[in-house]
Amino acid sequence: MPKTQELYLHPTSPLYLLKKNNMLDHITETTLLLDEKKCRQNIEMMAEKAERNNIRLRPHFKTHQSAQVGEWFRERGTTGITVSSLKMARYFANHGWDDILVAIPVNIRDMALVNELAAKVQLHLVSVNIETVQALTEQLQYPVNLWLKIDTGYHRTGILPHSHEQLDAMVALLEQSDKLHFTGVLAHDGHTYKQSDTDAIRTIHHTTVFLLNLVRDRFKARFPDLKVSIGDTPSCSILQTISGVDEIRPGNYVFYDLTQQHIGSCHYSQIAVCMACPVIAKHPERNEIIVHGGSVHFSKDSLTGADGSTIYGRVVELTDTGWSEPLAGIEVVSLSQEHGTIRASKALFDRYQIGDLVGILPVHSCLTADAMRGYTLLDGTQLEHLSGTGR
Amino acid sequence: MPKTQELYLHPTSPLYLLKKNNMLDHITETTLLLDEKKCRQNIEMMAEKAERNNIRLRPHFKTHQSAQVGEWFRERGTTGITVSSLKMARYFANHGWDDILVAIPVNIRDMALVNELAAKVQLHLVSVNIETVQALTEQLQYPVNLWLKIDTGYHRTGILPHSHEQLDAMVALLEQSDKLHFTGVLAHDGHTYKQSDTDAIRTIHHTTVFLLNLVRDRFKARFPDLKVSIGDTPSCSILQTISGVDEIRPGNYVFYDLTQQHIGSCHYSQIAVCMACPVIAKHPERNEIIVHGGSVHFSKDSLTGADGSTIYGRVVELTDTGWSEPLAGIEVVSLSQEHGTIRASKALFDRYQIGDLVGILPVHSCLTADAMRGYTLLDGTQLEHLSGTGR
Repeated sequence: MPKTQELYLHPTSPLYLLKKNNMLDHITETTLLLDEKKCRQNIEMMAEKAERNNIRLRPHFKTHQSAQVGEWFRERGTTGITVSSLKMARYFANHGWDDILVAIPVNIRDMALVNELAAKVQLHLVSVNIETVQALTEQLQYPVNLWLKIDTGYHRTGILPHSHEQLDAMVALLEQSDKLHFTGVLAHDGHTYKQSDTDAIRTIHHTTVFLLNLVRDRFKARFPDLKVSIGDTPSCSILQTISGVDEIRPGNYVFYDLTQQHIGSCHYSQIAVCMACPVIAKHPERNEIIVHGGSVHFSKDSLTGADGSTIYGRVVELTDTGWSEPLAGIEVVSLSQEHGTIRASKALFDRYQIGDLVGILPVHSCLTADAMRGYTLLDGTQLEHLSGTGR
Repeated sequence: MPKTQELYLHPTSPLYLLKKNNMLDHITETTLLLDEKKCRQNIEMMAEKAERNNIRLRPHFKTHQSAQVGEWFRERGTTGITVSSLKMARYFANHGWDDILVAIPVNIRDMALVNELAAKVQLHLVSVNIETVQALTEQLQYPVNLWLKIDTGYHRTGILPHSHEQLDAMVALLEQSDKLHFTGVLAHDGHTYKQSDTDAIRTIHHTTVFLLNLVRDRFKARFPDLKVSIGDTPSCSILQTISGVDEIRPGNYVFYDLTQQHIGSCHYSQIAVCMACPVIAKHPERNEIIVHGGSVHFSKDSLTGADGSTIYGRVVELTDTGWSEPLAGIEVVSLSQEHGTIRASKALFDRYQIGDLVGILPVHSCLTADAMRGYTLLDGTQLEHLSGTGR
């Protein structure tokens, strides 16, 4: 595909060497590009919003899972983080993070790791069932902060706000425990991800804040320091004013993706990751381009396009300094294990040659990053992802 | 969940220690179990079928991507293998395989790796476009076997059998090349994966064999040794008699999965991999069990159940020696990044407690193995997967 700026340089020119050495020329295989500038702007945007609203930001690190990206947060003042598994907690604890919330009902089969973490960091765990609190009470060797997860409408997991008997029994047990410190109530509004109406997202957010405060108020007299924590990128992106909560835990905003753009959480220009996939075959009879980039690279989330078609990614033009907004008339329409199929207009089909790189914005950046196991910055620097470290 | 054999053992009994040390007790986190016996039986079944039909078996290693599982094939006589990326070819070349077919249109951006591989193994590459053949002709430093991929109906990639002009031009170029050895024509019947009617699979298979032979016959006079190669687990599993081809390249049969059972390629008892997922929450109000096991573990392929519902896995009972057939009335109905939601009958809901392990047969074993990055045998031995090696 033609470069956007095709400045002619004679091979004796010093600039010629620079150009030959540009980053794209060094990419030979399917690669996840990360635009550090966009990423840092996303980090800045949410940090500034939290400060302006006088709320603590405890960003979810499950999206990037990278020690180096974590440092960009640290430089912007982040001290407490959220993760989604004990293994991820260990990874970031090993990289100097000492205030970590594991935002999934804790896996009590792995008490050895729970105790290993509790010994060295301020560990926050989440529970939904009294059996979990009982197991922790019996087996914890070090103090831990315990949050009750409330189901405010997503219906994946959590205690229903009106389950008073269950809540009271769990809190009674917490009150007796010398290791568990009842810290607060939290929720994850995963149902915002299914909306594309920002008003619906506001309603979900306000409902959740209302319900979490109801639950907190029930126990406030006995636990005056109880916190309320929420965490989802759509609400935290769309709302400018956030009140009624002590803490927010968005994560995906570090990269954003096509799903978030579709919801209305971000503009295309804020998406900080892009796949670079080599063209390996062309089919002129149906204007389809085959790239090396399948479900082992992207994972398999999809979006429904305006015409009802299923989209696995949108194509952008790669340049030496980043990428364009999505091109019209060209989309990833299918993924198998290693192949991606791109359907294009005739004009765009003709612009891509065998061996070219196609830029593709991912539908779900968390899963794509987990599948790709590492990042390449626009200057060629490699950053790690937990999944590529063998840990 | 109660063990299937609940023999009472006094703690002073030597057997008590053995029981305490059983494999399941040592599993603390989401784990991919591999039943070596079932796996070796699958390997044996296809090897025997190929011998009986006097056809070469070149198994596809993209499903397991494991050096150790590869050795089980070697012990059963495998000498040539199929892979789906240059990186996978390098991994197996480093593990002593010297006859490797990379069954994806070759990525000509990675000529350095192509030449590195061609220098040390008998490398087979695949092309669909003349531009690829031209690039190889210009840049290859060592001889390579070249296969033309024919599209016999899957319509993902391949040359259409009636595209005589394209075929003739490519073969003319191959004829002039001193590095490229035109070896044969191959196809992948990916459309068999969408069938659940074994007769339809037979028809697809016979059509493919007919079309590949048509293409071979066109060039037979000039290339008398041209081979015909096909490769898909459904056809190779369902047909007992295979003729008209020189080579078969099935891969998924090494493990099988729910998709293959649904197609009719295997019985549940042949599925050689099973996820063990800890129960992290329970919701009695809707008989839903939450396990630590989401799309980063299973990937995201699904099946449509008999009632039109979407299924992400079927639940089996784990024992110390393996697992049962799927239980009726309990299924994985949803996956998010780290959570799996299982919906159960009341009776089955009550059998699982927080901290228990749930056995889950995966929908697509290739993607699950790639996501899990390693295997645990039933005796606790760990096997590697390329994706967990950091290579």
